[in-house]
Amino acid sequence: MSFTIGHSLKLTIFGESHGQLVGGTLDGLPSGIRISMEEINRWMSLRRPSQSFMTSQRKEDDSVEIVSGVEAGYSNGGPITILIRNRDAISSHYDELKYRPRPGHADLTSFYKYGEHRSYSGGGFLSGRLTAPMVAIGSITIGVLETLGLHVISAIDRIGSIVSGNAPEGPMDAYSYLTRIPEREKDAEAQSLIRELLGAGDSIGGSIHTRVKGLPPGLGEPVFDSLESVIAHAMFSIPAVKGVEFGTGFGLASMRGSEANDQFEFNGNSIMSSTNHNGGILGGISSGMDIEFRVVVKPTSSIRIPQKTVDLRTKEQVRISVTGRHDPCIAIRAVPVVQTMTSLVLADVLLGSGFDLSGKQKVKGKE
Amino acid sequence: MSFTIGHSLKLTIFGESHGQLVGGTLDGLPSGIRISMEEINRWMSLRRPSQSFMTSQRKEDDSVEIVSGVEAGYSNGGPITILIRNRDAISSHYDELKYRPRPGHADLTSFYKYGEHRSYSGGGFLSGRLTAPMVAIGSITIGVLETLGLHVISAIDRIGSIVSGNAPEGPMDAYSYLTRIPEREKDAEAQSLIRELLGAGDSIGGSIHTRVKGLPPGLGEPVFDSLESVIAHAMFSIPAVKGVEFGTGFGLASMRGSEANDQFEFNGNSIMSSTNHNGGILGGISSGMDIEFRVVVKPTSSIRIPQKTVDLRTKEQVRISVTGRHDPCIAIRAVPVVQTMTSLVLADVLLGSGFDLSGKQKVKGKE
Amino acid sequence: MSFTIGHSLKLTIFGESHGQLVGGTLDGLPSGIRISMEEINRWMSLRRPSQSFMTSQRKEDDSVEIVSGVEAGYSNGGPITILIRNRDAISSHYDELKYRPRPGHADLTSFYKYGEHRSYSGGGFLSGRLTAPMVAIGSITIGVLETLGLHVISAIDRIGSIVSGNAPEGPMDAYSYLTRIPEREKDAEAQSLIRELLGAGDSIGGSIHTRVKGLPPGLGEPVFDSLESVIAHAMFSIPAVKGVEFGTGFGLASMRGSEANDQFEFNGNSIMSSTNHNGGILGGISSGMDIEFRVVVKPTSSIRIPQKTVDLRTKEQVRISVTGRHDPCIAIRAVPVVQTMTSLVLADVLLGSGFDLSGKQKVKGKE
Amino acid sequence: MSFTIGHSLKLTIFGESHGQLVGGTLDGLPSGIRISMEEINRWMSLRRPSQSFMTSQRKEDDSVEIVSGVEAGYSNGGPITILIRNRDAISSHYDELKYRPRPGHADLTSFYKYGEHRSYSGGGFLSGRLTAPMVAIGSITIGVLETLGLHVISAIDRIGSIVSGNAPEGPMDAYSYLTRIPEREKDAEAQSLIRELLGAGDSIGGSIHTRVKGLPPGLGEPVFDSLESVIAHAMFSIPAVKGVEFGTGFGLASMRGSEANDQFEFNGNSIMSSTNHNGGILGGISSGMDIEFRVVVKPTSSIRIPQKTVDLRTKEQVRISVTGRHDPCIAIRAVPVVQTMTSLVLADVLLGSGFDLSGKQKVKGKE
Repeated sequence: MSFTIGHSLKLTIFGESHGQLVGGTLDGLPSGIRISMEEINRWMSLRRPSQSFMTSQRKEDDSVEIVSGVEAGYSNGGPITILIRNRDAISSHYDELKYRPRPGHADLTSFYKYGEHRSYSGGGFLSGRLTAPMVAIGSITIGVLETLGLHVISAIDRIGSIVSGNAPEGPMDAYSYLTRIPEREKDAEAQSLIRELLGAGDSIGGSIHTRVKGLPPGLGEPVFDSLESVIAHAMFSIPAVKGVEFGTGFGLASMRGSEANDQFEFNGNSIMSSTNHNGGILGGISSGMDIEFRVVVKPTSSIRIPQKTVDLRTKEQVRISVTGRHDPCIAIRAVPVVQTMTSLVLADVLLGSGFDLSGKQKVKGKE
Repeated sequence: MSFTIGHSLKLTIFGESHGQLVGGTLDGLPSGIRISMEEINRWMSLRRPSQSFMTSQRKEDDSVEIVSGVEAGYSNGGPITILIRNRDAISSHYDELKYRPRPGHADLTSFYKYGEHRSYSGGGFLSGRLTAPMVAIGSITIGVLETLGLHVISAIDRIGSIVSGNAPEGPMDAYSYLTRIPEREKDAEAQSLIRELLGAGDSIGGSIHTRVKGLPPGLGEPVFDSLESVIAHAMFSIPAVKGVEFGTGFGLASMRGSEANDQFEFNGNSIMSSTNHNGGILGGISSGMDIEFRVVVKPTSSIRIPQKTVDLRTKEQVRISVTGRHDPCIAIRAVPVVQTMTSLVLADVLLGSGFDLSGKQKVKGKE
Repeated sequence: MSFTIGHSLKLTIFGESHGQLVGGTLDGLPSGIRISMEEINRWMSLRRPSQSFMTSQRKEDDSVEIVSGVEAGYSNGGPITILIRNRDAISSHYDELKYRPRPGHADLTSFYKYGEHRSYSGGGFLSGRLTAPMVAIGSITIGVLETLGLHVISAIDRIGSIVSGNAPEGPMDAYSYLTRIPEREKDAEAQSLIRELLGAGDSIGGSIHTRVKGLPPGLGEPVFDSLESVIAHAMFSIPAVKGVEFGTGFGLASMRGSEANDQFEFNGNSIMSSTNHNGGILGGISSGMDIEFRVVVKPTSSIRIPQKTVDLRTKEQVRISVTGRHDPCIAIRAVPVVQTMTSLVLADVLLGSGFDLSGKQKVKGKE
Repeated sequence: MSFTIGHSLKLTIFGESHGQLVGGTLDGLPSGIRISMEEINRWMSLRRPSQSFMTSQRKEDDSVEIVSGVEAGYSNGGPITILIRNRDAISSHYDELKYRPRPGHADLTSFYKYGEHRSYSGGGFLSGRLTAPMVAIGSITIGVLETLGLHVISAIDRIGSIVSGNAPEGPMDAYSYLTRIPEREKDAEAQSLIRELLGAGDSIGGSIHTRVKGLPPGLGEPVFDSLESVIAHAMFSIPAVKGVEFGTGFGLASMRGSEANDQFEFNGNSIMSSTNHNGGILGGISSGMDIEFRVVVKPTSSIRIPQKTVDLRTKEQVRISVTGRHDPCIAIRAVPVVQTMTSLVLADVLLGSGFDLSGKQKVKGKE
């Protein structure tokens, strides 16, 4: 179903960009898990608009209210529901847009699917604002995974033609860089580019690299619920994501088997390989190597530069310049969304495989 | 669940590479749909090993037996089960492999997950052989979609460094080319490359381009069951697929919004765009443009060139040369798998959206 | 999953009896459906405590706040979330109960499942209070079904030894009777009984009869998702329900086939039967006769009469007298819960069968 | 979906009464579980027709072929598929019935739902024959549960007006009695009744009592996936079942809370109660008492006594006498179906709760 994801651990989200609030419910988390409001707020602050000159100037404090499922700082085993009020929605920006779909946006498809009664202001429920509850609830699972020794680490590895090969060591490392490119010089270059785009009323795409450390081998399912399938399913639910690749990904199309196979070696008692072209997944199941994948985020669709569109009532061809307050590179704010949603998926897989998420039992493989 | 996929239309597969048979069950297909054995066999022959010098020399006639759900050539509304006997399994090839996992294969992860009782001969249920029931049952949905005016067209667009920009017009066009590259010269080049690799005991990766024509606008769900999510979920369940991208995909990372947005124009009464960087999907919902996506298929893992692996019993470092009968470029035989599984996913989405799959009602948008 | 129900139309509930609020999210309702706050409030008032001397004296205005999914009185196609604040929770009543499980209640099993961090005040999320969001959201589907010509009609047919054979004609008819027994004399008798039980600090069981008029024939699924299966699944999720029977139900154990078979006759163009021992369902599929079923609701567990229980800390045998404010016959307030949850299930079945819930297309069978 | 049931452990069934075969696939069973063909055959023999004068004279050896998922007597972790050939189908019995729906049967509703292309011979996929794969696969889970110390014990407790209060001690005990009433005298009485009905061409209903011993406390989910909900869901998928009640069930309607509450007492370290009106389930979760429930099975619909029906083509009112070979009291053959399906549901719940079904870890509560 479209607003629920997960098998043993289910997330349901709700709300609209310009409605009263957005929120989410997490069902299936065992009781007795420490829920830290500071942690949730920390992750929310990493996704929040208006962090710097290069994110949307919409002012949302994004304060998270937990209204069920948590008592005295611990999960009680029931559904955890969080609410995040919308405070700075300016719907007037959208009056013009009701019948003039923004290119690259869901306005047109929303009209096809939902008709006259669609939610259009601010994109309604088809808005990046719905990633706020993803991050709030996903951040709970980040804490759970860290207790079990798993770390999900994401960073931008490309904006436009600026590419970085640096991969950070810790989950928070990328956030020391305004553009989330964890390399001082490239970060500066990307900042300049974005400043230029802001002036031009244009936007830029980017890609995000993610590494998961500490996932036990033997996790995930073969075939239809392969780790790749369930991770990609979640990634493609993040607005603007248009590609997902694991390990060497599309690069494998031009490789030979003798290069692409990750050869096995003992490393003490563990079986490792010196390459990781498969991104830590073989046959849909974790191999004990780090999980590695990349997602591409398209350039923000809402740009000031005038573009062709149609008027759905008058059937005229018109031009549109999208004002409002938009990020010039939405990939940057997608980083914590990728991280938290990846954590949610992995927590679901672990729970479904019989792992004790409260961390009382030690994480171990099935061997 | 790992061996079942789908929501309103569910496919369950079963069997092992070297067991008695492989098979599948399709649940949810309405009654009264014409089931053509010729069509099923046609698709099976496109996936079958031993079609040419460049596919595995395992001899499987892959004859499909329908054992339930079809009477007098029509679906009866009950579950459709098909069986495909394994005839040419040579398990002796696998004796050496029981404790020596092949690099790039699921042997090691299967050992981690399933332990001593795992199915290892021929890869067990973690084998490309399980794509046979995917194709057999998926091909039924190809017929259904064609009745509704939808066409799923796939072809190889890259093998190694050989790249083709040609996209075929019809669903069967690629099959006139041995390598499924629909361009005479490139096809010949790729054939030479594969011949060379066969000699060298090596393999090569490739990528597959798919275009869906005729999908009505307004289909698919926002957020967690976006069209991208459900298509990617299915694609990553195909063995060896390591990446999926829609429209311009990873290329969007280096584009500006002013380039990447597909601008809307009237084309008669329809709203179209002259570009399709979004691959026909906006906000997870079909826009009326063709759906376009690419998947990357890694090089066949089983190669004759000796590679490092470990012995799980003796804990020794060893070298392995995988004999057996393997495709030098498994992407080629993945083409019909991609086509049929894409059809299955779209048939599920259409059925869940209230479309009459028997084609008695005309396909129409929700507008 | 435990807090989500439904296939094409999904309800997720959350909240605790003595937390801030209870609420629910409905996912899958098409856009353009009129949502009437008056209707929701009307149904909420039928479930509300403190309606008369014979329901709990807890004062809850149960005002429903719709926070997403509805704009200008119509569904927008996104998830509909409602919140209901708890205003009159008196947690002090529960201090004594933390380690002294109330007989007949979920206190003990909640302790087994959730341990020290369980939610125990007021029963936490294992409380009849969670039926408030069931009714609020289910009432939306009542309206939808009525537009399609379907009516779900429930009434009490037994309280203690007081039995009524009357079945009301309309969905609201039972509510003219304080005990929901739609027969003046029996209603009066039952009121006396309840008054007596209130004095004695005891409670009484009851059963609810439900009839669904207007369901098209041919709906529902065979075998695992039979109409009986999906209705019973929902009914057994209502606290205190311990039995569900369709048509003549347990009475069929002592009948012969020649009596129990509902013989078919033409009634104009329709095929009807003069009896309805099968409750309108054959092979899991609707037959065109009214759907009829009964559920039994056990006596309220919380009674003032002292009963044996254990102290979970001290391991002592103790006696407990449950004070707090409890209904002497909880079956009475379960009537609207049964009605609204039945509607929800049927709306899900209709939607999954391709019916247009907006009522723009006329409801018709598949024939 | 209609032919798949389960969450962590999924059963899919297929086939038709008069097709080539019936079968099923079990997905989710861990590897390393001993699969005993003798056990499966033993259970199949208890369900088989033609066991005595009082079951259908259709001759089916019901030999079960396992075609995937089992190697050398152990589960390999992949889907287990079983096939059961139909050998003694006599379709000619059904020619007359194609347009003359048998009263009490699914013939009419099947026509409504599936139309001209429905499967009608022998009831098609809406036949008791589909319970053969339920028993075959369910019997695997019986073995699994017994390893964990759980026993599911069923017996007939009523046929017509013959009622027995005896409940057997062991899972196989009822099968020493031809009518599965575990009381010598009542069994004899019931045999006489059935002999009489055979002569008269009539049939009789019955009910089945089930007790589950050894289920750990704290299992099951609150609200929508209560133990009652998931057990009832499965029971109502068994053809002819029309009611399910837990503990004292419908009897609770006439009880007072002071009688109906099962009061808690220590019994050594365990908390028990001297009554079990709640059938071992409180708040949807197991309490540590035996699970107890009853299902009612309506009289076999197919009877020789002529009954009114309609001709769907000619629109005439006609009379029908159902010949064929039918059980006079189908409740008797439903006993092993109830037992095996109950086991399947409980194995699913245990697996989803993190229990190790291979029995290597000892079963224990979550406390």
